[in-house]
Amino acid sequence: MTKYPYVKLTEEERKTQLEPLLVEGEETDSAKWKIVELNGNEAIKRTFKFKDFKEAFSFMTRVALQAEKMDHHPDWFNVYNKVDITLTTHAVKGLSMNDVKLAEYINKSAN
Amino acid sequence: MTKYPYVKLTEEERKTQLEPLLVEGEETDSAKWKIVELNGNEAIKRTFKFKDFKEAFSFMTRVALQAEKMDHHPDWFNVYNKVDITLTTHAVKGLSMNDVKLAEYINKSAN
Amino acid sequence: MTKYPYVKLTEEERKTQLEPLLVEGEETDSAKWKIVELNGNEAIKRTFKFKDFKEAFSFMTRVALQAEKMDHHPDWFNVYNKVDITLTTHAVKGLSMNDVKLAEYINKSAN
Amino acid sequence: MTKYPYVKLTEEERKTQLEPLLVEGEETDSAKWKIVELNGNEAIKRTFKFKDFKEAFSFMTRVALQAEKMDHHPDWFNVYNKVDITLTTHAVKGLSMNDVKLAEYINKSAN
Repeated sequence: MTKYPYVKLTEEERKTQLEPLLVEGEETDSAKWKIVELNGNEAIKRTFKFKDFKEAFSFMTRVALQAEKMDHHPDWFNVYNKVDITLTTHAVKGLSMNDVKLAEYINKSAN
Repeated sequence: MTKYPYVKLTEEERKTQLEPLLVEGEETDSAKWKIVELNGNEAIKRTFKFKDFKEAFSFMTRVALQAEKMDHHPDWFNVYNKVDITLTTHAVKGLSMNDVKLAEYINKSAN
Repeated sequence: MTKYPYVKLTEEERKTQLEPLLVEGEETDSAKWKIVELNGNEAIKRTFKFKDFKEAFSFMTRVALQAEKMDHHPDWFNVYNKVDITLTTHAVKGLSMNDVKLAEYINKSAN
Repeated sequence: MTKYPYVKLTEEERKTQLEPLLVEGEETDSAKWKIVELNGNEAIKRTFKFKDFKEAFSFMTRVALQAEKMDHHPDWFNVYNKVDITLTTHAVKGLSMNDVKLAEYINKSAN
């Protein structure tokens, strides 16, 4: 696993790496990541809906394995088939490539 | 697994079953369940702290297996080593024996 | 979760419920369940290959949640992206509807 | 996570790092790692018994998170409350510090 440096996204990275995540999928609330604030820092958040709890929790397990490997852990909430995930990088008080790469992995795992 | 009926706790059950959960452990925020409100309904909530993410997530896996078996799922939040769990029974708009029994299982699993 | 009785499959059930599992998918070793022997009893076995360990273990988590719910647990082996699952019903010394239903769930979860 | 080099254990490491794992605990089959052969290579194996499937599988989840982080995965087998774990390092056709460190983590996680 490549580890990503703890530096804020550059303007270039925001355009080429972050923006595609924000507009990906259909134009519904749950099909893309949104910029939010978490404890005063910039973060991205997406909501996932699965068929049932078993599907939701096994998705979480896959993400957990990747998060632990990256040493970059989500703020996440689950009830039954719903999972809300918020990503930010505490060390830079904002978004870094760790968030982009974990979001990409999460998108792939949710399909 | 015994399934518990979807009926609100009686006064007797509150005294004998719920109250021991609320006062168990040391008198700190994280060592006992507290009565809270969730979407307008009575619920109980407890915060758990583990050594790291691996310990927190394997605890969650154990609770997930029990929750699925009981068909009674928590509202829960995790970030790194911290897990917040809130229990309520939507079908009765309040607390039932499902919440008591799951809380007891959760307490046992956290040790 | 409907629990299935601990009785051996009837001839009728073998034909209508078990056989479709055995021939489903392509005619390769890993795309169908095979009749094997486990501790002297009839069992069914299938091998699954995933992209990596994360995918294999999250699949196992989904199956684990269902197995615990059914109170019917697999004999399974994993190394990296490979999962071997063997199902049998100890209580009947052979195959029961528990094996058929869990195999159907496993097939669905592997896609 | 420190990654360990893919080199065979030296005589010194076998004495100071591997041997303590082999004799640790009571003198019963399940309380220590044993030297075995896996596909012609030296490996270590230990059997764990838990209270039930939920405890066994959450233990496996904790180990899975560490294994993925180390990029060093076990050969393991589970049925109900029993988990058999075999460790070896394919790249060196024998035992490396990866096996020692993962075995130490596994021991700690089983308590």
